[in-house]
Amino acid sequence: MSKKVGIVMGSDSDLPIVQKAVDMLKKFGVPYEVHVYSAHRTPTEAAEFAASARENGFGAIIAAAGMAAHLAGAIAARTTLPVIGIPCKSSNLDGLDALLSTVQMPTGIPVATVAINGAANAALIAIQILAVEDKALADKLDEKRAADAKAVLEKDAKIAAEING
Amino acid sequence: MSKKVGIVMGSDSDLPIVQKAVDMLKKFGVPYEVHVYSAHRTPTEAAEFAASARENGFGAIIAAAGMAAHLAGAIAARTTLPVIGIPCKSSNLDGLDALLSTVQMPTGIPVATVAINGAANAALIAIQILAVEDKALADKLDEKRAADAKAVLEKDAKIAAEING
Amino acid sequence: MSKKVGIVMGSDSDLPIVQKAVDMLKKFGVPYEVHVYSAHRTPTEAAEFAASARENGFGAIIAAAGMAAHLAGAIAARTTLPVIGIPCKSSNLDGLDALLSTVQMPTGIPVATVAINGAANAALIAIQILAVEDKALADKLDEKRAADAKAVLEKDAKIAAEING
Amino acid sequence: MSKKVGIVMGSDSDLPIVQKAVDMLKKFGVPYEVHVYSAHRTPTEAAEFAASARENGFGAIIAAAGMAAHLAGAIAARTTLPVIGIPCKSSNLDGLDALLSTVQMPTGIPVATVAINGAANAALIAIQILAVEDKALADKLDEKRAADAKAVLEKDAKIAAEING
Amino acid sequence: MSKKVGIVMGSDSDLPIVQKAVDMLKKFGVPYEVHVYSAHRTPTEAAEFAASARENGFGAIIAAAGMAAHLAGAIAARTTLPVIGIPCKSSNLDGLDALLSTVQMPTGIPVATVAINGAANAALIAIQILAVEDKALADKLDEKRAADAKAVLEKDAKIAAEING
Amino acid sequence: MSKKVGIVMGSDSDLPIVQKAVDMLKKFGVPYEVHVYSAHRTPTEAAEFAASARENGFGAIIAAAGMAAHLAGAIAARTTLPVIGIPCKSSNLDGLDALLSTVQMPTGIPVATVAINGAANAALIAIQILAVEDKALADKLDEKRAADAKAVLEKDAKIAAEING
Amino acid sequence: MSKKVGIVMGSDSDLPIVQKAVDMLKKFGVPYEVHVYSAHRTPTEAAEFAASARENGFGAIIAAAGMAAHLAGAIAARTTLPVIGIPCKSSNLDGLDALLSTVQMPTGIPVATVAINGAANAALIAIQILAVEDKALADKLDEKRAADAKAVLEKDAKIAAEING
Amino acid sequence: MSKKVGIVMGSDSDLPIVQKAVDMLKKFGVPYEVHVYSAHRTPTEAAEFAASARENGFGAIIAAAGMAAHLAGAIAARTTLPVIGIPCKSSNLDGLDALLSTVQMPTGIPVATVAINGAANAALIAIQILAVEDKALADKLDEKRAADAKAVLEKDAKIAAEING
Repeated sequence: MSKKVGIVMGSDSDLPIVQKAVDMLKKFGVPYEVHVYSAHRTPTEAAEFAASARENGFGAIIAAAGMAAHLAGAIAARTTLPVIGIPCKSSNLDGLDALLSTVQMPTGIPVATVAINGAANAALIAIQILAVEDKALADKLDEKRAADAKAVLEKDAKIAAEING
Repeated sequence: MSKKVGIVMGSDSDLPIVQKAVDMLKKFGVPYEVHVYSAHRTPTEAAEFAASARENGFGAIIAAAGMAAHLAGAIAARTTLPVIGIPCKSSNLDGLDALLSTVQMPTGIPVATVAINGAANAALIAIQILAVEDKALADKLDEKRAADAKAVLEKDAKIAAEING
Repeated sequence: MSKKVGIVMGSDSDLPIVQKAVDMLKKFGVPYEVHVYSAHRTPTEAAEFAASARENGFGAIIAAAGMAAHLAGAIAARTTLPVIGIPCKSSNLDGLDALLSTVQMPTGIPVATVAINGAANAALIAIQILAVEDKALADKLDEKRAADAKAVLEKDAKIAAEING
Repeated sequence: MSKKVGIVMGSDSDLPIVQKAVDMLKKFGVPYEVHVYSAHRTPTEAAEFAASARENGFGAIIAAAGMAAHLAGAIAARTTLPVIGIPCKSSNLDGLDALLSTVQMPTGIPVATVAINGAANAALIAIQILAVEDKALADKLDEKRAADAKAVLEKDAKIAAEING
Repeated sequence: MSKKVGIVMGSDSDLPIVQKAVDMLKKFGVPYEVHVYSAHRTPTEAAEFAASARENGFGAIIAAAGMAAHLAGAIAARTTLPVIGIPCKSSNLDGLDALLSTVQMPTGIPVATVAINGAANAALIAIQILAVEDKALADKLDEKRAADAKAVLEKDAKIAAEING
Repeated sequence: MSKKVGIVMGSDSDLPIVQKAVDMLKKFGVPYEVHVYSAHRTPTEAAEFAASARENGFGAIIAAAGMAAHLAGAIAARTTLPVIGIPCKSSNLDGLDALLSTVQMPTGIPVATVAINGAANAALIAIQILAVEDKALADKLDEKRAADAKAVLEKDAKIAAEING
Repeated sequence: MSKKVGIVMGSDSDLPIVQKAVDMLKKFGVPYEVHVYSAHRTPTEAAEFAASARENGFGAIIAAAGMAAHLAGAIAARTTLPVIGIPCKSSNLDGLDALLSTVQMPTGIPVATVAINGAANAALIAIQILAVEDKALADKLDEKRAADAKAVLEKDAKIAAEING
Repeated sequence: MSKKVGIVMGSDSDLPIVQKAVDMLKKFGVPYEVHVYSAHRTPTEAAEFAASARENGFGAIIAAAGMAAHLAGAIAARTTLPVIGIPCKSSNLDGLDALLSTVQMPTGIPVATVAINGAANAALIAIQILAVEDKALADKLDEKRAADAKAVLEKDAKIAAEING
């Protein structure tokens, strides 16, 4: 049985972003568990979740937060599992604050950061991690790549037909 | 006896910056206690320090950190004492990452942020806080202001004499 | 009787932001006084308010302004009470101008800065300051923290139930 | 007799920058007066200087400051003379904080802002202002322009000779 | 008779911004002349307008442009009259491109820059320039200041009454 | 027969931007070919298109992409034809990410970058390149310039008439 | 036998940064292979390395590049192994260009990005990935964490002794 | 005989940067002509050079300038030859001002912009432009690419040997 992916968001207002990670994991049949834990409002629960994640069967944790986005770092401080950070855009500063707060981690406590609001890619990194020792999952990743490429080429054919005449 | 000011830095490499806060508190005769606690490398110790700070006689906590500077927020998450954040400039991004990581806190967990590397001002805010109910300390703040103003006016007199002729 | 919190905004267009500070103070039963004073259009009134604030029973002052946000600094220049600055986002530059104009204060005249539009947190810092010597108020802060945490955990339970199945 | 140009700097550490404004005014024979007044440490003196500047024979005021550079705005708030702001680069944020704090003034209180550390140009704007009604001064500005252009063309001739062969 | 103020915009799409400068000049009874000249599409006309502006009775020129906003600099390159630059916000980069392109002028060719979209202030600087030698105009500026201050204080009274009870 | 201009976009969602390049080329009667190739999803097709572009009769390639916009660089890595990059604004960071990812190319592999979303100018650069050895095309560019200038002057006449009276 | 970690740098000038990743992997006894492949100068070799990495026994790839840092993305486009990107600071823009070029990847092709010049953390993420199914390696990560924490606490003891007296 | 490449710099202080463009053109045997013309100090000479460039045998113009870098745009306004802009880093703002001032050109007047201080690439674009109709020159570009690739692969071999053992 595959390890689970933990998904933690700092606020339920981040759910519309996080949903794309959930959908991607579901699509790959990778088990997951979603939580709302705030690095600041529920630091104990966030820390406990992280500290026990490996023994609870998790293989990677995705953490999504906005503004001074400390959640991914707070999770990473309590586990040595790979932690993937999603900087969420909030109403000011266009997401730059969350990006820098997530990615600029000090030596020793890494956070694997994706693009602002990049939840689907966060899930894909988690899947890639689990696929390192799971040939079937790696094959599914290759299939998705091929399908994505095919979709681009179909769009190319369509647009080329319309515009190039 | 005045309450103490806690000063926490994320790394001992921040000491040259933090020293200015220590010097200012010493100058005002305000008791202080300095610690090196990392939000990421020693999250438990940082949390315990913060959680017990009020009962241990602290009146305010200053937290200094660089890069994805989570320390002030991590402290603020564990105490309702006023927490003052010093964003420390590190080798990249000119301190902007630390500033945004310190100041852009979510509602409910405020960090009173000063300028990048602004340790002297962080100490002054702590002193101002203690002075709200301490007339003698408030008087000292007024004296410092008067002395600072006098120093500016003396420089004005000197430069005006040299340049204006 | 608790000291008052002064709230000054640079323009009445900042009222929707400032209202969140008023609401928070009201919720904690902390007395406050709201004013519209501009650092630039009514510098004398702003200065007089600040200069007499301590003797008029204020314990902290919150100042909100946008663009080249000088108001908090102008207030801080005339009092040694703690001054809390709210950088207000205006139509350009996403609030970065107000943030830097508020937080990058020179040594000697600190402004305790909160997030862009962070009025609720500005009020919480003011309350934290007054709570340093007010056990009942400190208890209310702890209660609010506990309530906030409970709200997060309820959302976690709800979302976990919906998504994790 | 020509009106004077006031030059105010927020700190004597800004003198090396401000000196270029002094030199330019000297070169044009325009009378000037230099002062060190801080918007925050000596707000009263800064305000009094500005408020009485017109009746004291000033025609324009140059104000130089760094970080949360409020000085030009504080001067502009107390006079309707043209106020020219020089944002001074300090050790962090590459001068962007001073630029935004100087230029992003609210409607009604303008500051004519020059480039970061652009003291020579600040002096030139002051001279241009005085030259509006002073034909001889306007002629000197034209002469300087011609000399500057000649210097560029001489460099062109020299470099073209060396490189183009 | 007062000198005229020239207002040049790089594109007629800047008219809604520029209109505030026109309105302010009209309010002060200062004569003006508005033109659409592009530094890039009609460089000759822009240059000729600038080069002959002094002899055509202009006392200051306001130039408004967006993106890589070269117009104010192009005008300033052809006249020694004071040139005031308005950086106009366009659809990307939040006006930062126009601000830097306008304010960061090289030594010798200054542009007196106002806030992004700050057309009313640009007009006020032009009026302040003309008022240096025009007592009646200076008096009008003082009257406007007093009226602006009164408006703020009335808002203060109104809001204070509503909120402070 | 004129060489063709290749237009490649990273995603069909960039078509509304790219369309302005198509329209400009059509207006000048320059042959073009449009494709959707992703540097990341279809790297092989993008590389093959670029590698064979010169022998397939292309004279320049325009590449449009957003976010970490690698497409123009990936094309430029496989051809020595001139490659023109259009940084496309996406939902976060206001296009700054795409601009820096497109323009900051390492020595040896240049990308001729235009403004964010500047597709019409990208087409004009391609046309200018083809016009270097095509007198008739160069004449058309001059005609467009003259027409653009005339349009500005007509707007000037119209606005001047309305506003200047 | 553990899977290997591939380390690819875009230029040999990045070696001083990349060396910290090598050192960390060596310290953990994780096999690695270092290469200099440029996304732009040797795109074929970079692509071939990536495309065959999984079958060649790699478990994760670290890619380091500066400026318009496309290398990590180019590698990620050719493999479904986890790719970790190190944005390298070059002489301009303080590393922001490399950060945005590395992290802002489009959906489908994720790059797990670390801090600017964060090579040690890149190696740690690779080790964390390999440790998901390798208990001994996970234990080493825990030991390192404990050692890091101990080092902080020793510094705390030392500084506290010196400063707190 | 090949067309010439014009190289214009705004100040002779830009020569160390521009020299790399000269060196590249020399290496390819492409004729060039170097000038120092300032968009602001010698606008007439800059305009005349640009306006007559095509008839004087130029095929492309490279323009290098710093700060509010208008030179490339000013040249582009007077010719329909391809104009390549080099944003030069000056002492403040890390080159961002020059980059935005060069690249964010309005529709109709494009500037093909390279990286900050990217003079070698500017020359390569000029060479690529001339090579569109010059097979021998295109072959030289291919040879350089091959040599650059070989140099990378040699470094790879060397570093791989040293580090991978």
